[in-house]
Amino acid sequence: MGWRRNGHKPALVGMAGPPTLWARKLEKVCGARGFGVFQRRDFCVTPTSAQEVMLTCERYAVQRLPFAEVSEQDLAFFERVLPGRVSTDPHELKAVNIDWLKMVRGCSKVLLKPKTTSEVSQILRYCNERNLAVSPQGGNTGMVGGSVPVFDEIVLSTALMNQVLSFNAISGTLVCQAGCVLEQLSQYVEERDFIMPLDLGAKGSCHIGGNVATNAGGLRLLRYGSLRGTVLGLEVVLADGLVLDCLTSLRKDNTGYDLKQLFMGSEGTLGIITAVSILCSQKPKVVNVAFLGCPGFSEVLQTFSTCKGMLGEILSAFEFMDDRCMQLVESHLRLSSPIKENPFYVLIETSGSDARHDEEKLTNFLERVMDSGLVTDGTVATDNTKIKMLWALRERITEALSCDGYVYKYDISLPVEKLYDLVLDIRSRLGESAKSVVGYGHLGEPRGRLHLGGRPQLPGCWRPSPVAVGRQQRSVAPNRPARRRTSSATASPPRPSCSCSASRPCWTPGAS
Amino acid sequence: MGWRRNGHKPALVGMAGPPTLWARKLEKVCGARGFGVFQRRDFCVTPTSAQEVMLTCERYAVQRLPFAEVSEQDLAFFERVLPGRVSTDPHELKAVNIDWLKMVRGCSKVLLKPKTTSEVSQILRYCNERNLAVSPQGGNTGMVGGSVPVFDEIVLSTALMNQVLSFNAISGTLVCQAGCVLEQLSQYVEERDFIMPLDLGAKGSCHIGGNVATNAGGLRLLRYGSLRGTVLGLEVVLADGLVLDCLTSLRKDNTGYDLKQLFMGSEGTLGIITAVSILCSQKPKVVNVAFLGCPGFSEVLQTFSTCKGMLGEILSAFEFMDDRCMQLVESHLRLSSPIKENPFYVLIETSGSDARHDEEKLTNFLERVMDSGLVTDGTVATDNTKIKMLWALRERITEALSCDGYVYKYDISLPVEKLYDLVLDIRSRLGESAKSVVGYGHLGEPRGRLHLGGRPQLPGCWRPSPVAVGRQQRSVAPNRPARRRTSSATASPPRPSCSCSASRPCWTPGAS
Repeated sequence: MGWRRNGHKPALVGMAGPPTLWARKLEKVCGARGFGVFQRRDFCVTPTSAQEVMLTCERYAVQRLPFAEVSEQDLAFFERVLPGRVSTDPHELKAVNIDWLKMVRGCSKVLLKPKTTSEVSQILRYCNERNLAVSPQGGNTGMVGGSVPVFDEIVLSTALMNQVLSFNAISGTLVCQAGCVLEQLSQYVEERDFIMPLDLGAKGSCHIGGNVATNAGGLRLLRYGSLRGTVLGLEVVLADGLVLDCLTSLRKDNTGYDLKQLFMGSEGTLGIITAVSILCSQKPKVVNVAFLGCPGFSEVLQTFSTCKGMLGEILSAFEFMDDRCMQLVESHLRLSSPIKENPFYVLIETSGSDARHDEEKLTNFLERVMDSGLVTDGTVATDNTKIKMLWALRERITEALSCDGYVYKYDISLPVEKLYDLVLDIRSRLGESAKSVVGYGHLGEPRGRLHLGGRPQLPGCWRPSPVAVGRQQRSVAPNRPARRRTSSATASPPRPSCSCSASRPCWTPGAS
Repeated sequence: MGWRRNGHKPALVGMAGPPTLWARKLEKVCGARGFGVFQRRDFCVTPTSAQEVMLTCERYAVQRLPFAEVSEQDLAFFERVLPGRVSTDPHELKAVNIDWLKMVRGCSKVLLKPKTTSEVSQILRYCNERNLAVSPQGGNTGMVGGSVPVFDEIVLSTALMNQVLSFNAISGTLVCQAGCVLEQLSQYVEERDFIMPLDLGAKGSCHIGGNVATNAGGLRLLRYGSLRGTVLGLEVVLADGLVLDCLTSLRKDNTGYDLKQLFMGSEGTLGIITAVSILCSQKPKVVNVAFLGCPGFSEVLQTFSTCKGMLGEILSAFEFMDDRCMQLVESHLRLSSPIKENPFYVLIETSGSDARHDEEKLTNFLERVMDSGLVTDGTVATDNTKIKMLWALRERITEALSCDGYVYKYDISLPVEKLYDLVLDIRSRLGESAKSVVGYGHLGEPRGRLHLGGRPQLPGCWRPSPVAVGRQQRSVAPNRPARRRTSSATASPPRPSCSCSASRPCWTPGAS
């Protein structure tokens, strides 16, 4: 369910004694390193075809810890607990051993598909007693290699834990199992006039449990806030099988320490999330999207300030991208810009309850920014098809970037006023060695989120300047749709011959 | 900084070894009891005058743990660290030993007033080594007895830690010391066109550190969400003096476990919050308040549903109160209802960016609910003075309740559709033994929050039905303004002669 900060996500079971947990906790907090298999293992992003993905344990000098190996007796036990839902089929296992970016590969020989919390608990208790390593997996849409085994860990998939447990149509509280696919939950609540508080490109495949385990942000953060506020409760199974029931539906619950927060963003290292209680918002009646061109990044920032003041409560998204992003989506995906060429583009979404009011606010805002020269060109969409077309220009940048060559992607938080300096600095530093260095992302946060993507001329030759990268906030959210997986795999280049030290590849991958 | 779930807030230092901490944590999570001094100590609410407050250690059979007593050498050390900011003045100590409701009293002999995190760290490290107990204190506005010592703990006040450290006018991120008074922070950010994400009746006295330590909710929760989403970072000093720097300003930070969440709502039991980073929202340009009368609670709920649909993004508060609440504020505080008598009253606040749009939305909504009979009478205020007058009817119910007799107050979360049944059940159960049983609170949450207040005819004779009380969510938030403290103290009745067992008083107090 994601990649840990300083290296591979450890297998859950068998490492879960309190001292180890606390050591890992400290490692996370203090950035300490040197915990054996948990040492920092930077590596190249190498989108190769499935059959060519090198085993993680061959590519990196990671050592398997002394876990037991799965025996026939173990399989028999699993089969008793999960009749017909224990797989050792090599074809089925191939899919769960390789991450979506096809950069890491485990060699698990067992896939377990529980349907209930009780089954998860029985499996973990047994594995803990038998010293068998377990790797939890949701939709396997993560882009940082954390959702697949490193060695032969048992893959515990939440795919069959896909039941909605309850929905309160007055409060909008949805309680569901962890394996529910985000898009299916969205459809479920939208039929009831609500929307999920998060939306991601990967919604067609990603599981709500994985979203929570990786503390995914997504496109609705500006309006509906983070999962830390909208997730009301969790049910989690710990490594020894203990079920921690924090599945409250209270928005504010001060009856004890808020333990569930520890599991959000912990990426399966503390336990397996089995159920989620989440607060859905009333579905907005009207949505508008404006796509605008700006002459410079300073104007993008001023447009953002003006926008916050004039659109206020109806503003639901503010995204930006530079001209090179537009060139990439135009050339590789044959999308076309609806406006003339500009150094920067801005996508603004409004969501409100009154079409005329929203249109008036948007019109007044557009007049202001056009008159003041902050914006030189723009278009507005109100119907759903056109809105999706405009969103595609922003959402598919990642896909366009990966259409040829090797891609390094980072998800970085910086003060908005300094956000784009990083792209200029990296561009200047890399010079001719990179085909392109692009910047795009959200401005609707206290600090802007920059998706820095680059395509080097030669694979494996970048080394980031720690100063330039600054405070890196790696997103571990699964954020690519399943429908694009095939095309990306088809278009993927051959495995690179990395020019760096084999044991110390060259850059930490980020998410897009 | 609040009262713990199962009894007195423990002194921080000297109890802070990991096993004890984990025992207390489990106690909180599992509701387990029997940890010596941490046993459940229910008691009566007894608003008596200052000189009559019985010592907590005399009223309840709590035992002082074997902490050291403050010596002359200790005082000399404190004086070196905090020159001129160590008080042993009995008059000054009286104020910090007694809680605002005047129901519990400690007998601390030392008050320390650090100005910096480093000073807090030095004090805690020293006290930890010397085995001296410490009780942290913010604005001492809490209503559940948790902000004052139980025995002779050293009171560590955050009153002089009142500096704004930074404010980012683009993102709205405020970083300040824990002792900043909420109202002063509100004024500070409002001058910069932002508002604090929380508002409380006690804002004139309460400290932001105490707000966070008690995970205060308040009147803006519906629109701006809980502190779990808006608090971006914390700086905390642990019991051994270690400074935990989680003072990030990132809205989403996935670089490790979100440890700061553990301190939110932990009421000083895990450490002392010394600084807070909090996300402020853009100040709304227009605020309207409607005060409406409804014929029944069912109509209150339907008004709420209609309101959410028609006011949508501009809805910022939805409060209700019953007719007995109105009678109390009218008779005791000489406030007058602006509308005719109704079984229920609703206060709706809207906050938006366009006066005409908001007025139109509100008008359409009011026409709908009046035409459909959900609302039988109402008034709308747009200017600040009238808005404050309408809010006073709701905000001062607690004050009115405490004007005569003994008051038991609870802050309860229940599904909104069942919310008022509890008041009816309690009323029926208590019959003539209670002067009044009232219900009021927020509906703008997934589950409604009911403030249940009652005045028994005889003090100390109520025993709640566990079934009726259901899931009790005690608010430990300080939520009374300092300006009302004097009048309440003046009007307070004599100490009751509780008819219950002296060692097991009769009811757990809640907050209003």
